[in-house]
Amino acid sequence: MNNQLFSANKIAEAHERIRPFIHRTPILSSVSINEISGTELFFKCENFQKVGAFKMRGAMNAILQLSEAAQNRGVITHSSGNHAQAVAKAAKLIGIEAQIVMPSTAPKVKVAAVEEYGAVVSFCEPTLEARQRKVEELIEKGDYTFVHPYDNLEVILGQATCAKEFIEDQADLTTLICPVGGGGLLAGTALSCKYFGNEISVVAGEPVGADDAFQSFQQKKLIPQTNPTTIADGLLTSLGKLNFPIILDNVSEIIRVDDTDIIASMRLIWERMKIIIEPSCAVPLAAVLKHPEKFANKKVGIILSGGNVDLNHYFDQLKAKNKKIGS
Amino acid sequence: MNNQLFSANKIAEAHERIRPFIHRTPILSSVSINEISGTELFFKCENFQKVGAFKMRGAMNAILQLSEAAQNRGVITHSSGNHAQAVAKAAKLIGIEAQIVMPSTAPKVKVAAVEEYGAVVSFCEPTLEARQRKVEELIEKGDYTFVHPYDNLEVILGQATCAKEFIEDQADLTTLICPVGGGGLLAGTALSCKYFGNEISVVAGEPVGADDAFQSFQQKKLIPQTNPTTIADGLLTSLGKLNFPIILDNVSEIIRVDDTDIIASMRLIWERMKIIIEPSCAVPLAAVLKHPEKFANKKVGIILSGGNVDLNHYFDQLKAKNKKIGS
Repeated sequence: MNNQLFSANKIAEAHERIRPFIHRTPILSSVSINEISGTELFFKCENFQKVGAFKMRGAMNAILQLSEAAQNRGVITHSSGNHAQAVAKAAKLIGIEAQIVMPSTAPKVKVAAVEEYGAVVSFCEPTLEARQRKVEELIEKGDYTFVHPYDNLEVILGQATCAKEFIEDQADLTTLICPVGGGGLLAGTALSCKYFGNEISVVAGEPVGADDAFQSFQQKKLIPQTNPTTIADGLLTSLGKLNFPIILDNVSEIIRVDDTDIIASMRLIWERMKIIIEPSCAVPLAAVLKHPEKFANKKVGIILSGGNVDLNHYFDQLKAKNKKIGS
Repeated sequence: MNNQLFSANKIAEAHERIRPFIHRTPILSSVSINEISGTELFFKCENFQKVGAFKMRGAMNAILQLSEAAQNRGVITHSSGNHAQAVAKAAKLIGIEAQIVMPSTAPKVKVAAVEEYGAVVSFCEPTLEARQRKVEELIEKGDYTFVHPYDNLEVILGQATCAKEFIEDQADLTTLICPVGGGGLLAGTALSCKYFGNEISVVAGEPVGADDAFQSFQQKKLIPQTNPTTIADGLLTSLGKLNFPIILDNVSEIIRVDDTDIIASMRLIWERMKIIIEPSCAVPLAAVLKHPEKFANKKVGIILSGGNVDLNHYFDQLKAKNKKIGS
């Protein structure tokens, strides 16, 4: 890892920069989940963050770090997930244009969310190649700056502010665990634990059906993700080039969990904590519950990364029930 | 209202009494719901309370106020809702027996929750008469003390501690709004606003399909609820005798909302705040959104009364989706 790229100062500066635009999210705990897990867990609720995910931090920092000229030309990204919403919202907050390329198969609810933030949505075939081609086309026309979802220095510094807050607000953490997809959150978390923590052990949870980070970590070389299959739709991407060496140097362990574990942990958090998290966000708790012996008698911080789920089905069913009551 | 029954002191004493057994629940707010409603809203999250509802406060206080002899004989109630769980949990916390009479039609998930707290569940036909008969039968055998869900002095004092905390933690509230069913929470809220608030206006929301409180309030006489039909299954009961005069004297207005409004507000809170509330709990926000002119430019406190919903359907669907991904 290149020490010139990252420092405590740079993370602190990113934090000051984005502070007016983000929420300092609360830390919750649950007596009953503590009992079930046999350890003391602290949940940092980035599902309560703007746009419902930590992605707001990185997108905001990356956009604020652009030159005024680049900001005025606008930003672009391709994503069907939380990063799309984060770029759209961050651009809106400082009054600049955002172009979002989404696959034609993207759920309407996600397209609507991005459009609600005022971004211009373009559609393409649902392949990575088509996405990139479409982005290049649009950049040729509009000279937009591309904001990568994770393989970007300023994005990593932005995501690092989450663990920084966590450490500031809960000083006695012994362990910090977050999910890993592209590695923006995990690299940022590892950096903040290194610079601001008191020997905090950094652990990641990863779906077994998209375990490129685990494989790369084991073999100490970057292995791209191919054909991922998991309910954790935020964790399908390949680990970033910039992210990997930070993770290799500063993360203790990557724990894999299967989709059954993920859904069970998601349900536990919905039912016991009464908060909404998305499947990707349940991966760290699933990892803790799978290996309770690794976390016993610790103070474990879990980053709840996001809460964007499609609730159409639930509310359609509730409306149907209501019709039955009324009849 | 009988001034000897209620006083600031009695509420403060109830608060001290139950403090070790309850959570001081957080107050959340939502920029986007503020924008939609055109006012400043503060949500006190009793869905995060033990057993997932404010009912814990009243049940705990009522049980702690029993003589040691009565406690040792045990307590009893009939309920298929949050009060059943609250009595079961409160009894468990101080190590006494709880008997809960539930209708044979009660959802398995609710029976399981009560049994998880160690209470003894007896079933009866799903009528109020059958419930009461069963309770009397059991009392004859075991000399249990009946804990009424709302028409009970100590229960009202317990529920009052919620608004007391709210006022202490958010001193500038101009209005406080909660749902009304039997009137335990509303009466308690009205008392705390009277004793601890600075001219706070107390408003209630009620489903139009179970509007006995509205009718009673209008006609200034207690009119029992008959054949209620609403999705807000926590608000089906008739207003209590002890509760009614407190409400008549201290509440400004009762606003009725229909089930479509309730479901829309419930969804808004799930989607924007990422927290789980039950339909009954969405009634106050539905009232605010139905009459925004009444709340414009105020600081409105909303008590989110509970978060116990049946999530089986949602997670069955998620598991089915997962099977499809895996195949």
